[in-house]
Amino acid sequence: MNRQTAPLVGILMGSDSDLPVMSEAARTLEEFEVPYEIHIASAHRVPERVRRYATEASGRGLEVLIAGAGQAAHLAGVVAASTVLPVIGVPLSGGRGGVMGGIDALLATVQMPPGIPVATVAVDGARNAALLAVAILAVSRPERGLGQKLTRFREQMARSVDDRDAMLQELGFRGYLEQAGSGRS
Amino acid sequence: MNRQTAPLVGILMGSDSDLPVMSEAARTLEEFEVPYEIHIASAHRVPERVRRYATEASGRGLEVLIAGAGQAAHLAGVVAASTVLPVIGVPLSGGRGGVMGGIDALLATVQMPPGIPVATVAVDGARNAALLAVAILAVSRPERGLGQKLTRFREQMARSVDDRDAMLQELGFRGYLEQAGSGRS
Amino acid sequence: MNRQTAPLVGILMGSDSDLPVMSEAARTLEEFEVPYEIHIASAHRVPERVRRYATEASGRGLEVLIAGAGQAAHLAGVVAASTVLPVIGVPLSGGRGGVMGGIDALLATVQMPPGIPVATVAVDGARNAALLAVAILAVSRPERGLGQKLTRFREQMARSVDDRDAMLQELGFRGYLEQAGSGRS
Amino acid sequence: MNRQTAPLVGILMGSDSDLPVMSEAARTLEEFEVPYEIHIASAHRVPERVRRYATEASGRGLEVLIAGAGQAAHLAGVVAASTVLPVIGVPLSGGRGGVMGGIDALLATVQMPPGIPVATVAVDGARNAALLAVAILAVSRPERGLGQKLTRFREQMARSVDDRDAMLQELGFRGYLEQAGSGRS
Amino acid sequence: MNRQTAPLVGILMGSDSDLPVMSEAARTLEEFEVPYEIHIASAHRVPERVRRYATEASGRGLEVLIAGAGQAAHLAGVVAASTVLPVIGVPLSGGRGGVMGGIDALLATVQMPPGIPVATVAVDGARNAALLAVAILAVSRPERGLGQKLTRFREQMARSVDDRDAMLQELGFRGYLEQAGSGRS
Amino acid sequence: MNRQTAPLVGILMGSDSDLPVMSEAARTLEEFEVPYEIHIASAHRVPERVRRYATEASGRGLEVLIAGAGQAAHLAGVVAASTVLPVIGVPLSGGRGGVMGGIDALLATVQMPPGIPVATVAVDGARNAALLAVAILAVSRPERGLGQKLTRFREQMARSVDDRDAMLQELGFRGYLEQAGSGRS
Amino acid sequence: MNRQTAPLVGILMGSDSDLPVMSEAARTLEEFEVPYEIHIASAHRVPERVRRYATEASGRGLEVLIAGAGQAAHLAGVVAASTVLPVIGVPLSGGRGGVMGGIDALLATVQMPPGIPVATVAVDGARNAALLAVAILAVSRPERGLGQKLTRFREQMARSVDDRDAMLQELGFRGYLEQAGSGRS
Amino acid sequence: MNRQTAPLVGILMGSDSDLPVMSEAARTLEEFEVPYEIHIASAHRVPERVRRYATEASGRGLEVLIAGAGQAAHLAGVVAASTVLPVIGVPLSGGRGGVMGGIDALLATVQMPPGIPVATVAVDGARNAALLAVAILAVSRPERGLGQKLTRFREQMARSVDDRDAMLQELGFRGYLEQAGSGRS
Repeated sequence: MNRQTAPLVGILMGSDSDLPVMSEAARTLEEFEVPYEIHIASAHRVPERVRRYATEASGRGLEVLIAGAGQAAHLAGVVAASTVLPVIGVPLSGGRGGVMGGIDALLATVQMPPGIPVATVAVDGARNAALLAVAILAVSRPERGLGQKLTRFREQMARSVDDRDAMLQELGFRGYLEQAGSGRS
Repeated sequence: MNRQTAPLVGILMGSDSDLPVMSEAARTLEEFEVPYEIHIASAHRVPERVRRYATEASGRGLEVLIAGAGQAAHLAGVVAASTVLPVIGVPLSGGRGGVMGGIDALLATVQMPPGIPVATVAVDGARNAALLAVAILAVSRPERGLGQKLTRFREQMARSVDDRDAMLQELGFRGYLEQAGSGRS
Repeated sequence: MNRQTAPLVGILMGSDSDLPVMSEAARTLEEFEVPYEIHIASAHRVPERVRRYATEASGRGLEVLIAGAGQAAHLAGVVAASTVLPVIGVPLSGGRGGVMGGIDALLATVQMPPGIPVATVAVDGARNAALLAVAILAVSRPERGLGQKLTRFREQMARSVDDRDAMLQELGFRGYLEQAGSGRS
Repeated sequence: MNRQTAPLVGILMGSDSDLPVMSEAARTLEEFEVPYEIHIASAHRVPERVRRYATEASGRGLEVLIAGAGQAAHLAGVVAASTVLPVIGVPLSGGRGGVMGGIDALLATVQMPPGIPVATVAVDGARNAALLAVAILAVSRPERGLGQKLTRFREQMARSVDDRDAMLQELGFRGYLEQAGSGRS
Repeated sequence: MNRQTAPLVGILMGSDSDLPVMSEAARTLEEFEVPYEIHIASAHRVPERVRRYATEASGRGLEVLIAGAGQAAHLAGVVAASTVLPVIGVPLSGGRGGVMGGIDALLATVQMPPGIPVATVAVDGARNAALLAVAILAVSRPERGLGQKLTRFREQMARSVDDRDAMLQELGFRGYLEQAGSGRS
Repeated sequence: MNRQTAPLVGILMGSDSDLPVMSEAARTLEEFEVPYEIHIASAHRVPERVRRYATEASGRGLEVLIAGAGQAAHLAGVVAASTVLPVIGVPLSGGRGGVMGGIDALLATVQMPPGIPVATVAVDGARNAALLAVAILAVSRPERGLGQKLTRFREQMARSVDDRDAMLQELGFRGYLEQAGSGRS
Repeated sequence: MNRQTAPLVGILMGSDSDLPVMSEAARTLEEFEVPYEIHIASAHRVPERVRRYATEASGRGLEVLIAGAGQAAHLAGVVAASTVLPVIGVPLSGGRGGVMGGIDALLATVQMPPGIPVATVAVDGARNAALLAVAILAVSRPERGLGQKLTRFREQMARSVDDRDAMLQELGFRGYLEQAGSGRS
Repeated sequence: MNRQTAPLVGILMGSDSDLPVMSEAARTLEEFEVPYEIHIASAHRVPERVRRYATEASGRGLEVLIAGAGQAAHLAGVVAASTVLPVIGVPLSGGRGGVMGGIDALLATVQMPPGIPVATVAVDGARNAALLAVAILAVSRPERGLGQKLTRFREQMARSVDDRDAMLQELGFRGYLEQAGSGRS
């Protein structure tokens, strides 16, 4: 792989049942043309592979790692313990099947002891994890123009909010709610 | 070491600041004359040593592991991922310095995903962790008479409650509360 | 009953509405060929039967007890108070009908006072309760080869994770998510 | 004992460390001249005595039971399972030593399953438990005039609030706060 | 109304959306042939009627009041402030529409300040509220034989648990789960 | 715009997905004939527009602002930081899609530091936010007769509760529940 | 009393133990020269006086009410039920003596049902309650110049932050922390 | 300022009362010889300065921002809304004065909506915030050798744990606890 296509971000998740949420991180990195790799690798079921992955990540050219897990979510912390790369943790709620709304995963991810930080985002916040990775790479990889892309992304986001507000002014809330059935995001 | 003195229980804790609580487990095992070893070994700061310890524990003759940790308490789960021995987790509140009453450590210890259980006891419940270890060994080590010792321990505990109740009947609650300043436990 | 078929594990639950979750413990014990018995026995509705069951369990050859209950989940604690066998508690969320995601059952199960431990697993963690029982029996019943079975179980679990990861590498996340509708676990 | 002095209320607590809080129940019953008895009797350490106490309570002439316990507070539920008398539960926080502010004891006391109610009062609410017992006895024991006493108690409470308000009007809040160091309740 | 049919228990709820849950209290009182009345009366929307109802309840011959409310559930407390009768509070979760699983209603009901107790039952525990009322009336109304009825109710409940356990022994858990689709409760 | 029709209340929400809940505020203001405007304006996505809106609100004649947001709900606080008008915050649960029942939004809205208050209403309490705005305007805009309208609104609300209670008395709870399928609110 | 000195704000608290916190509201109103009155009046102990106070408040010229209470904090809701004036609720934690950090009081204050809003501020946020009252009066009482005073207050607050920042730049954090022992706020 | 000494990290906090915790971030950056600046700048009290600071940060050469705040902790989110630099949020508990153990600040910091991430660390985790900043800079500033420094830091941390464990083996837990009064960390 050359410098343009070798993955810069590694996305890990504890189970393939996490993929519907965690794939948002992959989609977001694609939007920003950031090469990434994505793996299923549980801290509890394949601890050796996780440890090896984390240990070798830096040498393989990865610059940021994203780890999503639910319940007693140890994945991000275990990864962080074996690398000095920035590690972003995504606490997962388990959706309707989860019983605690992800508060267990949030605390198990964010409350890391002094010495080994995990950069934690919101419960099920895989998209923000990717955006945070982009923000980190924007500094280290100026040649990729990620800072400008992020700025444009923010502007588009702002414009989208403004457009919706304009539509709300035009239609009124009753009209807007009627239309929303089809095309609201 | 011979069979009588080789440690059967391994006690781990993430930091020496956990020792005041976790030493209760050691004291309790001594009461039951169960040989043990006790180590400081953080899942995040010395992950390799923890993994190696867990991997080798069974071969070294250990039969139960106890792991105490606070905050995003991964220690018990990380140990459990590398051994098939029963692992008992003690969530630690961090005492007055802790900010969440140990609820973070409790959830991070108990909410293990299917496949890798951790036998979790109460927040700061190091004494109960040792008693649980004794109960497990009572079955596997009948020659040690731990079942009988546990039964006697329960009887003493019951008698102590009964004695206090008798004292309460004798002194009344006012008298009892006055005396309690000196000798209550 | 002979030594091979007499139950070693007793599974209790407070209500037959707990059976869909608690039957996972039974299924798991069957996977490991561990003989067990399973009973409906509420700590509040048939306290005498529960107490008698717990008191006689050891004499009947049982070596581990598993108790699942929801809400103010007292079953495991009540059982533990009348036996010195290891008692594993499964807090139950009550599924969609439950209103607190099982946090009430978790605290009522795990926060046992010093002297009477309950080995608590995750909310609705009946499968892990059985695996923990197997781990305990692995030490006391070497003739059953449970340690090896557990090791194989872990290896299979690891292989399953690895296989899914391989499939993810092959299909990409989009392909994987498409396939997952039919055969994901 | 004659009808006037035989205890009508039984106060139980799991440990003598609960006595500073639970003695408030006794003091309150004395204010109302309601005969009571008070016992230390843990649901986990002396389960047989607790069960026997609950089973025999009605036959011994007791009409209301009060049970205070902390952590996985099973005492009230265990008592309620063995009597049809009204059982009042007092969740105990454990004061500064407790790590969860009593939320564990509250949920373990109040979240009883259908069929076996526990009348739960506030965390550490031993005084209110006694007042609730008095309210229950006021109906069944009209000869004791407890209804009138409760009414007078309420009037005094109201007057005390009114008096403090009057004092606040007179002194202003600055003066009141200065005086409060000595005589505020 | 004569002594047999004049209502002894008053059931209040804050909104008619609470009726599906609170009607369980009415059904239960009917099972025990305890005359009752049931009213919709919000502490916030018709405070005067609630206050008057509470003030006059005792004079009208009511002996126990049950109040169910959700969210900032003030109803039970407001009623308790205007009567010395025992008041039982039922915190309501609001079912699927509620956003906090009833924890708001539980705390708002149970955490009453010293002086004015509310006998709180489990979230959505209307059936237990009625059973608690029956237990209270059993003492004051011996002529109704409520104590015996409660004892029989407990026996039936125990028998039902025993019957289900017997069926489980007969069918095994697989057979039981199959049958449960039609006739489980 | 003249004094009668120029908006007095500004309603903001962070996303158009909040409109189904927040439109209740608009509907309620229309009931009271209070002119308002309603905007989509995220504190994080269009911070400049939000700040400008807040800064200019008073000069444009607005007298109360209502801000609804979910998760880390900063909108109300950010608005309050840039105006001295009263700001009412509505924490949003996100409905079924939200994972924490709105407790995150509640704490992020209400726990403002000294100096910058936000008048917080219940989770998803958009209707109450509007009623609070009406109550505030009732004092400042006596010519609109809002105090009388609020009084009438309260009377209607009380009458509606009374009517339902009357219907419950007439139909009994069984009849009421049957009817409720069609016409209950 | 004339228009300048007749109280515009009524401050209520449930107990004189709330005065140390609630007096902050009084002090703040004095800073803004807003006439107020302050009363001890418990919703549970003197419900009639509270109701009468709320009912008559508007007629007596009060324009905003502030109510502070702890635990099952009903005071603000009870007041709000009997007036159409804006009611501001202050949930009180009870300081060190409280066992739940005020979360009980927060939920009991803020989670009001549709129809009767309470403008809730942070736990122990008495100062912000007063500032919110000032913001409300700023609109209705333009002759008092409260808007300008609030603007000045905000400017001073900003200046104070800026001054501290300047001091931090000058002293460095070590110097600042040393000085802070004496003069930090 | 030249490239070596111009600040790369900006540390913000909402109040000087946060300095004792947040200064840990500064100390940690000094350990790694990372130039930083540190400011007091409240999102609510000086919103304009915060916004300007965030907007200009990138142009001024800053590469990472750290923001610490308590209660409804909006600072990190507000900063993140005005920059595309990585923003690290430190939820602050407020120490003994705080009433919710920092759970309010945690949720208000971490639960950011899609589009604007905040990299959140543990409650009061200022040291980890700095370490995370160092990890981010390690990639973008290879000339500073931060990766090697982080590796050495981890090694020292591991060695320190190992040394303590060795001391524990030498002294036993009783000896260790005795010594710990003087020299434990």
